[in-house]
Amino acid sequence: MARLPQVVIIGGGFGGLAAARQLKRVACEVTIIDRHNHHVFQPLLYQVATAGLSPGDIASPIRWILRKQPQLRVLLGTVERIDTAARQVWMDGHDAVPYDFLIVAAGATHSYFGHDEWSAVAPGLKTLDDALAIRRRLLLAFEEAEREHDPARQRTLLTFVVIGGGPTGVELAGALAEIARQALRSEFDAIDPASARILLVEAGPSILPAFPEGLRASARRALRRLGVEVREGLAVSQVEDGAVAIGDERIEAHTVLWAAGVSAAPIGRDLGPGLDRAGRVPVAADLTAPGHAGVFVVGDLASFSHQTGQPLPGVAQVAKQQGTHAARNVARLIRGESTRPFRYFDPGNMATIGRANAIADFGFLRVSGFMGWLMWLFVHILFLIGFRSRLSVLLQWAAAYLTYQRSVRLITRNPGS
Amino acid sequence: MARLPQVVIIGGGFGGLAAARQLKRVACEVTIIDRHNHHVFQPLLYQVATAGLSPGDIASPIRWILRKQPQLRVLLGTVERIDTAARQVWMDGHDAVPYDFLIVAAGATHSYFGHDEWSAVAPGLKTLDDALAIRRRLLLAFEEAEREHDPARQRTLLTFVVIGGGPTGVELAGALAEIARQALRSEFDAIDPASARILLVEAGPSILPAFPEGLRASARRALRRLGVEVREGLAVSQVEDGAVAIGDERIEAHTVLWAAGVSAAPIGRDLGPGLDRAGRVPVAADLTAPGHAGVFVVGDLASFSHQTGQPLPGVAQVAKQQGTHAARNVARLIRGESTRPFRYFDPGNMATIGRANAIADFGFLRVSGFMGWLMWLFVHILFLIGFRSRLSVLLQWAAAYLTYQRSVRLITRNPGS
Repeated sequence: MARLPQVVIIGGGFGGLAAARQLKRVACEVTIIDRHNHHVFQPLLYQVATAGLSPGDIASPIRWILRKQPQLRVLLGTVERIDTAARQVWMDGHDAVPYDFLIVAAGATHSYFGHDEWSAVAPGLKTLDDALAIRRRLLLAFEEAEREHDPARQRTLLTFVVIGGGPTGVELAGALAEIARQALRSEFDAIDPASARILLVEAGPSILPAFPEGLRASARRALRRLGVEVREGLAVSQVEDGAVAIGDERIEAHTVLWAAGVSAAPIGRDLGPGLDRAGRVPVAADLTAPGHAGVFVVGDLASFSHQTGQPLPGVAQVAKQQGTHAARNVARLIRGESTRPFRYFDPGNMATIGRANAIADFGFLRVSGFMGWLMWLFVHILFLIGFRSRLSVLLQWAAAYLTYQRSVRLITRNPGS
Repeated sequence: MARLPQVVIIGGGFGGLAAARQLKRVACEVTIIDRHNHHVFQPLLYQVATAGLSPGDIASPIRWILRKQPQLRVLLGTVERIDTAARQVWMDGHDAVPYDFLIVAAGATHSYFGHDEWSAVAPGLKTLDDALAIRRRLLLAFEEAEREHDPARQRTLLTFVVIGGGPTGVELAGALAEIARQALRSEFDAIDPASARILLVEAGPSILPAFPEGLRASARRALRRLGVEVREGLAVSQVEDGAVAIGDERIEAHTVLWAAGVSAAPIGRDLGPGLDRAGRVPVAADLTAPGHAGVFVVGDLASFSHQTGQPLPGVAQVAKQQGTHAARNVARLIRGESTRPFRYFDPGNMATIGRANAIADFGFLRVSGFMGWLMWLFVHILFLIGFRSRLSVLLQWAAAYLTYQRSVRLITRNPGS
């Protein structure tokens, strides 16, 4: 019997998983490689960072998710190089994995716009590890403030700046305000957590640029009701330990969170030349990497501008649909057919602002407030992987909604989750 | 109005929490100090280490647990010195906290019997951080084995040695066997997790020395059914990276877990002289530290031998009852009465061996197997702190019981939980 075609998928995020699942009934052997052993439901990562959910609620082992696909192999490791000439990827530990078809779904990381030194002071939120490091920072800030005798230093410890007014920034700022004003209220002696100052800074003209102005306005109102200072049209000029410079104002803040920019995973360089400014691979209409036969690129690492002229946004839905489409094209090539161009169907945008409040834009329908939140809740529970996770998350949210509490306020130090 | 007496509690474990709660209605100001912001339900720590439960399921912030006690202050930090002459404790950062009465519930840490160099290779299980580090090790061992090409090295990666046959060791070994034989079954390609070798080594004549022989025997049988090699009467002579020497046998093992010995927290030295070999403070009948007026010692740090001639075991029940009693004695002193001697009421012993199997010894009643497990489950759910935790844990266990799965198989790297 002839050797089956080898398909290698780099990345176990939304794009990679969608591709792997699509290949289930295709006559090929699939290898999926990821740096982490788990898939993370990114849209809820901010809930882990703000102690609302446990890592186990929003992440599942990739092996477990794909356990029903015996012809599929999962490898834990980092892909260090793609050798498109020899058609193989090199992993850490010098393992070479040959491929006939390659689907690169390596995603993106934070971008500090050339100020990588800021990363130590202003952590971003991309992985479970990021979320846990941020959670630790937030909670420690209040604990240190409780022990601090100098009032000025106390104010600094209780000042939180979120940089970047996209959905993640808005959700972080909203959740932060809730922790300070509600969850921690009356648990401290020397400080009043409710006096914490929370700023949300957006360099562009408005927060949530992807949303229509009506919804933006209600998001702004909701944030202000929660006591978040929203600063729009102000760029961050400096970030250092204990302070940030916004426009020409200097703000003493112990905790600065980065939700501003992302840049594509560096592995994309092996698929150049011609990467765009964010390091993304400008893919052909069928999602192949120009000049690299049999190589598809999907998700945050791909720049697909054949539909609107603009690159599609780096959201879960784009990654999922592209992953599925790339896998279909691989199957077509295996059957000796030709590939088809990708078309994105936009299911709409959502963002939540603290407790029981969210905005949702489905084009034909725009909702905000409690109704928006119910939709947000429904959609996010629906797409969570794992029956147990769904129940557990519903449980946590129900309890949090009723008690204003946050259940996972743990400060831990070692490797772990 | 006269200044209220200052009571300082060191440690937010079972002993410290029990003391703090007991002081709720006493006319005094209470400060409780802990290195962690959370109280951990130690008896279930092995479940976090073996990916059965999330840290958030078995730990709650001390502030949150004690939120109903406004006259109580919680400080996050390490107590570096007790100055019994000046009646104050020194914290990290040179904060001095004065006290009129001191309750020391600092607990114990691992003891490697003079071989501290073993700690890096054979981690113990005392804190959430320990549990997360162990979980990471276990899961990585299987992942590395999957990528390993050398069969000998593969066997080493799939060999797990648990040192110490007390309840923790037994529970770790049982859970480990379950992960290998059930949870991970059929998720790997190059290896068969079920082929993993799991050894439980006890230097004493028998595992579970605190239990009657009948229950020990059924525990042994249960462990063997799970495929755990039980080695009794064999001391560990050497632990190094990748191998352990047991008796005169050398066993190549990538993962070695330490559940053998504990020694009291070093802070006890400030309450000497006269500490016992394990570094415990031999307390008077009323739990005071001899020669240190107004200082009480409870839990693992205390050696109380006035009841049976033998020191009481280092278990949660002893710590809880002593914490409560010490607080009562403090209240008596505040009221100008004299202290009363402590008496331990032994509610019995329990240990669980893998799925749906446990042994329980209530003296008048001895149970093993499924019935024992139901009792174990009931008792542990009952004493878990936090309504949310209880529901969540029940949910996880129900799911695990039905699916043989373990829901929290996450490998993370950074600080976090």
